[in-house]
Amino acid sequence: MDEFDIEVHADPELDDPVLVEGLPGVGHVGKLAAEHLLEEFDGELVRRVYSEHFPPQVTVDDDGVTTLACAEFHHVEAGGRDLLVLSGDHQAGDGVGHYRLTECFLDVAGSFGVERAFALGGVPTGELIEEYAVLGAATDAANVETLGEAGVEFREDEPAGGIVGVSGLLLGLGERRDLPVACLMGETSGYLVDPKSARAVLEVLQELLGFDVDYATLEERAEEMEEVVKKIQEMEQGPTPTDEDLRYIG
Amino acid sequence: MDEFDIEVHADPELDDPVLVEGLPGVGHVGKLAAEHLLEEFDGELVRRVYSEHFPPQVTVDDDGVTTLACAEFHHVEAGGRDLLVLSGDHQAGDGVGHYRLTECFLDVAGSFGVERAFALGGVPTGELIEEYAVLGAATDAANVETLGEAGVEFREDEPAGGIVGVSGLLLGLGERRDLPVACLMGETSGYLVDPKSARAVLEVLQELLGFDVDYATLEERAEEMEEVVKKIQEMEQGPTPTDEDLRYIG
Amino acid sequence: MDEFDIEVHADPELDDPVLVEGLPGVGHVGKLAAEHLLEEFDGELVRRVYSEHFPPQVTVDDDGVTTLACAEFHHVEAGGRDLLVLSGDHQAGDGVGHYRLTECFLDVAGSFGVERAFALGGVPTGELIEEYAVLGAATDAANVETLGEAGVEFREDEPAGGIVGVSGLLLGLGERRDLPVACLMGETSGYLVDPKSARAVLEVLQELLGFDVDYATLEERAEEMEEVVKKIQEMEQGPTPTDEDLRYIG
Amino acid sequence: MDEFDIEVHADPELDDPVLVEGLPGVGHVGKLAAEHLLEEFDGELVRRVYSEHFPPQVTVDDDGVTTLACAEFHHVEAGGRDLLVLSGDHQAGDGVGHYRLTECFLDVAGSFGVERAFALGGVPTGELIEEYAVLGAATDAANVETLGEAGVEFREDEPAGGIVGVSGLLLGLGERRDLPVACLMGETSGYLVDPKSARAVLEVLQELLGFDVDYATLEERAEEMEEVVKKIQEMEQGPTPTDEDLRYIG
Repeated sequence: MDEFDIEVHADPELDDPVLVEGLPGVGHVGKLAAEHLLEEFDGELVRRVYSEHFPPQVTVDDDGVTTLACAEFHHVEAGGRDLLVLSGDHQAGDGVGHYRLTECFLDVAGSFGVERAFALGGVPTGELIEEYAVLGAATDAANVETLGEAGVEFREDEPAGGIVGVSGLLLGLGERRDLPVACLMGETSGYLVDPKSARAVLEVLQELLGFDVDYATLEERAEEMEEVVKKIQEMEQGPTPTDEDLRYIG
Repeated sequence: MDEFDIEVHADPELDDPVLVEGLPGVGHVGKLAAEHLLEEFDGELVRRVYSEHFPPQVTVDDDGVTTLACAEFHHVEAGGRDLLVLSGDHQAGDGVGHYRLTECFLDVAGSFGVERAFALGGVPTGELIEEYAVLGAATDAANVETLGEAGVEFREDEPAGGIVGVSGLLLGLGERRDLPVACLMGETSGYLVDPKSARAVLEVLQELLGFDVDYATLEERAEEMEEVVKKIQEMEQGPTPTDEDLRYIG
Repeated sequence: MDEFDIEVHADPELDDPVLVEGLPGVGHVGKLAAEHLLEEFDGELVRRVYSEHFPPQVTVDDDGVTTLACAEFHHVEAGGRDLLVLSGDHQAGDGVGHYRLTECFLDVAGSFGVERAFALGGVPTGELIEEYAVLGAATDAANVETLGEAGVEFREDEPAGGIVGVSGLLLGLGERRDLPVACLMGETSGYLVDPKSARAVLEVLQELLGFDVDYATLEERAEEMEEVVKKIQEMEQGPTPTDEDLRYIG
Repeated sequence: MDEFDIEVHADPELDDPVLVEGLPGVGHVGKLAAEHLLEEFDGELVRRVYSEHFPPQVTVDDDGVTTLACAEFHHVEAGGRDLLVLSGDHQAGDGVGHYRLTECFLDVAGSFGVERAFALGGVPTGELIEEYAVLGAATDAANVETLGEAGVEFREDEPAGGIVGVSGLLLGLGERRDLPVACLMGETSGYLVDPKSARAVLEVLQELLGFDVDYATLEERAEEMEEVVKKIQEMEQGPTPTDEDLRYIG
């Protein structure tokens, strides 16, 4: 394997596709959102990217079969619009790796003719959330204005440490290629996998891109998470949780 | 020295050889199992791999002579079957190093005509073990089925964090080369070097590959370890253990 | 993007320019000093350097627009003298990155004909400071003498750990290119962003280079910091500070 | 600067020179020993090696002049024998860096015709020492025998973690080049700079190589250290030590 190994699974012609990235991060918000799109719109795997910049790791599927650390691009048709959805279980292992991987992802997106991109993620608040605001950032002022009209909030000095990892570099390196990129960050406590925050992010995305998506399965996961939170709260007085419960904690 | 330095010690013609990897890891299960094969079947050193991806370190043998960090391939003839056993005292120092080393190991295996491989290791349970189950994972469903018939267990969400290091990448990168690889993971507490877990793993391997091996020396080491465990338990009430005792704790 | 991406914003002819570096470090002293020069003398951006050796990060400006981690060179005309000011929000992510980045910065400086350089920074004292001494170090004895005449102090075994990061390498790698480089280090507690220390450093620099600069805005920031210190001291007895207050703590 | 920058200071013809390495490590034993040779035999600087694998750092000399992190080779004539002494203030920043630096050092040694080498260092005992034994290790059995005759001790399983860093790799990579290398490790508590351990190591070296060296300055440093130890012991009951005292603690 070279530094990157890009596996071709399908080669559809896409019409003005939009890149939507949802790799793991705070509250797994971006990952949950991207995976929800894949499930609801029956995404077709088009590329799989392996790289020595990913962790040296395989995951074991429920049937005992292993999968090497990778990221995947799926084609999704949502409301007549072509999306190229980037998802996976890993970020890079170090800073240089993040730069190299993101360049590789932008190359793949470019090969499909992507001219607009969204990076999805979460922003930690440190406390449990009632109203899920979505914060934004973008490579350009026009993008910022469009996001603002869709209800995205822009707050001075947030997110405090800037945006890091692949999401941050999609913006930074995308701009170097004249690709307009917007980042949608759902507020989330930062302590748990947060399907509600993922829903808030998707609601903004669907308004911006003009598609309709059902949230029933995200709602179910949100309810499961609420059960977990309750059990954790009970733990402080009562018996220990089972492994099954803890499995949901990201 | 370049990135890799592969020393040729012997060049036997091997008949349909099977790669068996046992590098250090949880409970040193894989390493103990691989070394037991080398001792019992009188393995012949065929290749030694040095690399800047190993720790910058020499070990000192009992006669005061040093050995640079390396991994070794031995030829073992077990029950009429040719094995190529990969063992050593080190894994790579970082993620990229793990990828590069594993590719190098697969190249060596390929040069001997290996078309099937086993990665041996341990899976930590966090508690002392009575019955040593062997968990499995494999690159392909056919392999999973074969393992299952030999008593290997497959459990949902185990091992929890996937399989990391050289063992994990033998599966992940092996599959990229169309090499069927299976991973056998003996349950082990994770706190001590565990010869009993190594035996459990070897018992599965011997059934799968059709050889017979004596376990007397592993049993001796297991008894030594039990002495150590007893002494540690006594430590909590009694006097401190000698260095000799602690030497066995991995 | 390659290892470095040097963006050209302007290409003025500079007359015997002096490089002045102020990247983040202890008390942000160098960074504050460099930025003060840019503001007071209305610096013109001439080069922006992007690199995979910077953290994988974008910052979000107050208008919601993102900027990829970078360092900037501005041209500043101060008292009839051309300065090339190097500033930014980041150092490199690791040791090799520091070497590579500093070489790149010296290449840029060389392309403008720089034949003399100053690295600005802070030296931590561990306690709040009344009198802000400026410590020095230089690539050559002539430089040390000149600094001494301007009131810079030289103390045995200070700074204790030598000078690290880009500032240190500007001296070390500058000398390898026969570039005389001096380092001016303002004493600072090390706990807070320290505009007073930045002023002390600039007062030495203005004497050495013969320019006049107004310190009103640095004084304002110093007063803001004193308010913050007071609030922190009150915290120990009273209510919690607002985020607005904590924003000033580097 | 490339990966390495080797500065030539002198090019003496050496007669069958022996490489003696003393870079920083446990108790600074090797470094003290190497520097003592340089002082007593009035060493001549022949090569200075700069590298991006060293820390990104300059040290500040007592006159305020900076020196970039480097390693130095001096020619020393000791009792009619040519030594090439490798000393400095730094090891590499990571594992790959250690491999690359050591290869570079072996190249320099080779260019002077070195055919025998000693790596000097300390081995930590964790307690204050009365009798300073010197432990050994070597690339070959003949070397081990010679060391044994000079009073060097070889103990099973010591040093416990093998020999790491440049000293370890001088043995490991030296052997790959058919260079016989021996390691002399003075016992030392591991808590303090230890001139007495350095003396013990040098006493073995002088017997092996046949030179005479005066230990007065090492004795002075040892007495200074004993003062420091006393003051530290007093600290536990009495007033705090001055910075001057703590300067000696490595």
